[in-house]
Amino acid sequence: MKFNYYLPVNLIFGVGKIELLGEETAKYGKKALVVTGKNSTKKTGLLDKSLKLLDKANVEYVVFDKIAQNPLTTIAKEGASLAVETGCDVVVGIGGGSIMDAAKGIAFMVKNQGDISDYIFSRKSGTTALPIVLVPTTAGTGSEGNNFAVLTNPQNGDKKSLRTNAIYAKASIIDPQLMITMPKSIIASVGFDALTHNMEAYVSNTSQPITDMQSLYGMKLLAENLRKVYSNPADLKAWEKVTFAATLGGMVIGMVGVTGAHALEHPVSGLKDIVHGKGLAALTPEIIERSAMFSPEKYSDISRILGGTDEKDCSKVIIELLKDLKLNVTLGEMGITHEDVDWMAENCMKVSLVSVKNNPKEFTIEEIKEIYHACI
Amino acid sequence: MKFNYYLPVNLIFGVGKIELLGEETAKYGKKALVVTGKNSTKKTGLLDKSLKLLDKANVEYVVFDKIAQNPLTTIAKEGASLAVETGCDVVVGIGGGSIMDAAKGIAFMVKNQGDISDYIFSRKSGTTALPIVLVPTTAGTGSEGNNFAVLTNPQNGDKKSLRTNAIYAKASIIDPQLMITMPKSIIASVGFDALTHNMEAYVSNTSQPITDMQSLYGMKLLAENLRKVYSNPADLKAWEKVTFAATLGGMVIGMVGVTGAHALEHPVSGLKDIVHGKGLAALTPEIIERSAMFSPEKYSDISRILGGTDEKDCSKVIIELLKDLKLNVTLGEMGITHEDVDWMAENCMKVSLVSVKNNPKEFTIEEIKEIYHACI
Repeated sequence: MKFNYYLPVNLIFGVGKIELLGEETAKYGKKALVVTGKNSTKKTGLLDKSLKLLDKANVEYVVFDKIAQNPLTTIAKEGASLAVETGCDVVVGIGGGSIMDAAKGIAFMVKNQGDISDYIFSRKSGTTALPIVLVPTTAGTGSEGNNFAVLTNPQNGDKKSLRTNAIYAKASIIDPQLMITMPKSIIASVGFDALTHNMEAYVSNTSQPITDMQSLYGMKLLAENLRKVYSNPADLKAWEKVTFAATLGGMVIGMVGVTGAHALEHPVSGLKDIVHGKGLAALTPEIIERSAMFSPEKYSDISRILGGTDEKDCSKVIIELLKDLKLNVTLGEMGITHEDVDWMAENCMKVSLVSVKNNPKEFTIEEIKEIYHACI
Repeated sequence: MKFNYYLPVNLIFGVGKIELLGEETAKYGKKALVVTGKNSTKKTGLLDKSLKLLDKANVEYVVFDKIAQNPLTTIAKEGASLAVETGCDVVVGIGGGSIMDAAKGIAFMVKNQGDISDYIFSRKSGTTALPIVLVPTTAGTGSEGNNFAVLTNPQNGDKKSLRTNAIYAKASIIDPQLMITMPKSIIASVGFDALTHNMEAYVSNTSQPITDMQSLYGMKLLAENLRKVYSNPADLKAWEKVTFAATLGGMVIGMVGVTGAHALEHPVSGLKDIVHGKGLAALTPEIIERSAMFSPEKYSDISRILGGTDEKDCSKVIIELLKDLKLNVTLGEMGITHEDVDWMAENCMKVSLVSVKNNPKEFTIEEIKEIYHACI
């Protein structure tokens, strides 16, 4: 038994905790770059509310609202330049995973020079960033609980995470109340992302006791509550459980990494700007089918938590869940063709090699191609 | 569901991890005050080994080896003065709970002026300390995983913890190999301390999902392995589990506090320099007997983990464990008399009020006296 566990994020969890945004941010800076998306935090009023909270705590701010799905490496530099020009000394990210990851990338690039891709591919390293405060508005990515920022290079489609302790949030304010405005299709895709984080960390070759118990608990909460919030998005009690499970998912992958489906999904959404959770949905059953016999006890645990019997029906119970969430899609339906497979398989070996090796069955490039073809 | 979870300690766990002491310390300072006890780390060779590791990493050091059981508030100031005089910029604590707590108190007093008791009783607050690296040599206190430093005021016997985020260790190197040299009586008393941490946090009125799952796992590991290491202290596989459970115990009480037995034990060892784990052993069964019906589900979980049936036989299974560990003692056998009860009960309300309120049954001062009398 050997492990390294490090999570220096102040996790502030609960309905209504958004009210603490101003005072929490004031602990780390005087002027915030507020990173958010183009639409949803404006429509729901959350952005206005957040800015008022910053005002009340005497924190000045500049809003940077250009973040879209699958954020680009270029946005990190753009946001960082704005932060420097306007004298921001803290970054506040309000939104889903794309926004939180962009906020992390921006905070990092304020303190580090050059091309962020060099840091993503470990050709350079940086140990500092502006302090970061995160407010998740989706229960999926778990970025509020780890040191990853997944960014896509628009020049070559490489979708890969920057991983450095510098980009742990100082505080994450996780308010389940913020989840109830999500559209059903988003609930499904981010919720399934959260489930895969917990599943993949649990079967990871580097899993450790603390992450195992967190993953098991996260999977249990999602098994019991994900269908509930999907069918009734106003069910706040169920949202508490789903939101907590999503943060757990972020925490566990932060410690022990992701495995098969995430490894193969990044090239997919790197290539065609596909919704990450849908890409995972298309890939996960096939990958479990090919991995379960290599870690039968763990896949058996997963299967039982989700209502199955043992490792042999694990992919089947996942498919049933995906059907209930209207998320049983193929890569083909999302625009991926058999012609894309060679590029994706090669790119997978480039951007996801660590995660490929972390899977209970280490797939060869030929097997990865077979999986892609089977999922189209 | 509301909680705040914050654990900014780099937990480095595993057999042989002591080898990292030099390079880890070098991350935080150039000259270390090495805080340790008078005997055990010298006898086992651990102190020599540690100093060599610091040497190799070009970290200078000064050894402060005056720490004894139930460390005093005065030692914090003494160590801090030495650190300042000799220009130390990092504190390394190598030893059991007393030593780690003293190291934390020393690191704190380098950066804060006045009487440490003012900070312990929250009359003053401090937010900084020298960076701290901890190496536990007992599997009990869990100080390596929280922000507590329990110190005793020699003037009035007040034994109470300093609690501030400033004294979280930067890194804790938790090497199960270091446990195998403990004498059996120490194994029993620190091991039971670890178990009570997990039990008390689990029944705490402020318990939360993350701590519940950690406590449950910690109790399970101790139920399965504490007797094993007691009967065969060379069983390294079992030590891994017990050591991990002790760190979990420290982590959970750091988040949600202790309850009944710890509340009542501090006045006991504050008054008569008694071994903490023995004081807990004398008090715990009686306190569980009087608390179990106020949180039947949780005490039932504890009982079943330890081999019992439900909350009604929880104290019975604890007594069986104590017998197996030759730890079934009374306060009377350790020198406490009925004449001490009034002082202890009043002191309990002074130093342990938060923990008294945290117990599933909030005992009145009269009930606390009854418990003390029953345990003499």
